[in-house]
Amino acid sequence: MGDSRYTGKDNVRLRDDGMAVVILDQSLLPGRTEYLEAETPEEMYEAIKTLRVRGAPAIGIFAAYCMAALAEREIAAFGGKGGGRKNSGHDGLFADDASGAAEFMDVMKKHGEYLKSSRPTAVNLAWAVDRTLEAAGRALKEAAETTAAAAAAEAVRREALSIHEEDIAMCRAISEHGLSLINSGDGILTHCNAGPLATSRYGTALGPIILGTERGMRFRVYADETRPLLQGARLTAYELSQAGVDVTLICDNMASAVMKNGWIQACFVGCDRVAANGDTANKIGTSGVAVLAKHYGIPFYVLGPTSTIDLACPSGDEIPIELRPPEEIKEKFFTEPVALPEVRCYNPAFDVTDHSLITAIVTENGICRPPFDESLRAAVGRRK
Amino acid sequence: MGDSRYTGKDNVRLRDDGMAVVILDQSLLPGRTEYLEAETPEEMYEAIKTLRVRGAPAIGIFAAYCMAALAEREIAAFGGKGGGRKNSGHDGLFADDASGAAEFMDVMKKHGEYLKSSRPTAVNLAWAVDRTLEAAGRALKEAAETTAAAAAAEAVRREALSIHEEDIAMCRAISEHGLSLINSGDGILTHCNAGPLATSRYGTALGPIILGTERGMRFRVYADETRPLLQGARLTAYELSQAGVDVTLICDNMASAVMKNGWIQACFVGCDRVAANGDTANKIGTSGVAVLAKHYGIPFYVLGPTSTIDLACPSGDEIPIELRPPEEIKEKFFTEPVALPEVRCYNPAFDVTDHSLITAIVTENGICRPPFDESLRAAVGRRK
Repeated sequence: MGDSRYTGKDNVRLRDDGMAVVILDQSLLPGRTEYLEAETPEEMYEAIKTLRVRGAPAIGIFAAYCMAALAEREIAAFGGKGGGRKNSGHDGLFADDASGAAEFMDVMKKHGEYLKSSRPTAVNLAWAVDRTLEAAGRALKEAAETTAAAAAAEAVRREALSIHEEDIAMCRAISEHGLSLINSGDGILTHCNAGPLATSRYGTALGPIILGTERGMRFRVYADETRPLLQGARLTAYELSQAGVDVTLICDNMASAVMKNGWIQACFVGCDRVAANGDTANKIGTSGVAVLAKHYGIPFYVLGPTSTIDLACPSGDEIPIELRPPEEIKEKFFTEPVALPEVRCYNPAFDVTDHSLITAIVTENGICRPPFDESLRAAVGRRK
Repeated sequence: MGDSRYTGKDNVRLRDDGMAVVILDQSLLPGRTEYLEAETPEEMYEAIKTLRVRGAPAIGIFAAYCMAALAEREIAAFGGKGGGRKNSGHDGLFADDASGAAEFMDVMKKHGEYLKSSRPTAVNLAWAVDRTLEAAGRALKEAAETTAAAAAAEAVRREALSIHEEDIAMCRAISEHGLSLINSGDGILTHCNAGPLATSRYGTALGPIILGTERGMRFRVYADETRPLLQGARLTAYELSQAGVDVTLICDNMASAVMKNGWIQACFVGCDRVAANGDTANKIGTSGVAVLAKHYGIPFYVLGPTSTIDLACPSGDEIPIELRPPEEIKEKFFTEPVALPEVRCYNPAFDVTDHSLITAIVTENGICRPPFDESLRAAVGRRK
């Protein structure tokens, strides 16, 4: 199984035979670079659930390819036979006729529901599954009865590839816009991980850095380790280092010293949700970086696709913040607990950065500057 | 050996027979509460070197008691005999006469040099050892020749007790002044550990909280875990929890969210060195907390003895910052490395908080407010 070389490209892809999804197992990074092939619905579910694949766009792409691989497997299992048959290990049944096509859709919907249940709050997951099912449904209507299921499976595959290609194009556009904000030689501070691992290629916050490096520019990147889950240490430092970028890992509490030293010319962070007024929810600690950047006179940029902008949400006050278990702070990664069982922890997964602290929000449709209520609405309006 | 009950008092003390120093082994916290008895110079050296005792004042008190225990052991070993003898395991020799007293001093000086070499940069360590040696020297001059060594040993013991008592009185005074700045019910954020474990009793930054709690006041304390060495998790959360204080552990990057939530009415931190203009060197991350406090309109207090104020140092620019190894960030405490060997780290042990971010500096001689160059000079002037 798998390859030991991380290329920063295609961390998620359909296997050549179309019957499995190949992913870089992020849960083993940075110690081991292992690719894993998910073939069964159970393997796919487990990969999402246990964060072998993480980052909203990456989860969406993975789920779409899962639907394509499952469709292919249903067709292949069906292929050699004239009538209905029991699908290997699953309860789907379909025949090579009109009722068979309906059965195919039923099976695919069940697969979709099962995959969606792996992380119910991941918006991109449900969105990607539904896009592939809609494509299958359209294909079924258009196809001749005898080839309906095969046509639907092919439509699922094409939709998955489109989702992947669209994400690459979007990240590429964000990267180009972001790159216009910095100069070769700049020091850049980033928090958490919004690079190729979390998306498709380039990433959002790390995109301008990786794109600029490909073009021969040089940056000095300071990566906050990002407690408690250490995505900055485990993923950002890993992928930037693999991409040949000069990266220095720091603890979150060292950002102030690094800025005070004059080493940072810009901060780049991703986003989980942007309210209509520009208030931005992102990984816990982002708001602290923004306050420091303002204090030290350093521009603070948020990078993300327009799909992250929620115009129905007027401000950050309306964004609910997920609280996570104390074990992540006291136990995870450590050889022994670093605090007593009776010590209480506060462990929010995200915080909200006030729009007044944000210099600009960089989307695939351009750079939004204050007043954000106008510029964000315009960027969303330019969405295809 | 020892006791499994942590009382928050006398984490460092002379054993009843005066022949050993008993300390709470901080390197095992919070998993194990074990007291250890250091009898030989080698055991004492090792206890300092491996951070079983840490915190500048606590190291000073420990070293003074070590000198007292070693003096007692030299006298006891000598006691039963009329002439010179080979000291158990060490190279000191002294006899019950004038040359014997000189030999006693030579042995004690060698012990002192050996202890001082355990952590050469710890100012309190050398200061405490020298104080006990000076006390021994004065006693020798005053005593009759035949009892000179015994009198010197007794002087060392008294000096060690004085150092301990002075530290308790100083921490108590700092705690009283600090307590005047807060109200029962307040939320207080602290960084790193400046409590009883690092000092004698009460501590500096944690002193007002512990003293107020003893008087029936109630505080909600948020303790930054303080990466990379986690003194906040391992020590502050531990000792506050043992003292019955309502303490919540957070990762360093959560301080901004906690302040934004309106949960913090004051920040209390310790200090390693305060320049004449008020710029303060303290544990890495302190300056970030100060910037956040200013942004959110929360008072930021530094607490420490006037011995920490260095009037010869005009500003923070003149304070050298110790850089520590990357292993502390990437490996220490973790079951496996969280970043690849080739990933560079920046790991400063301290940062400097600009005086403009500090609301007041609380000393045993009162509360210093801006302009600090005047108020700090006055506080130092009131030192006995």
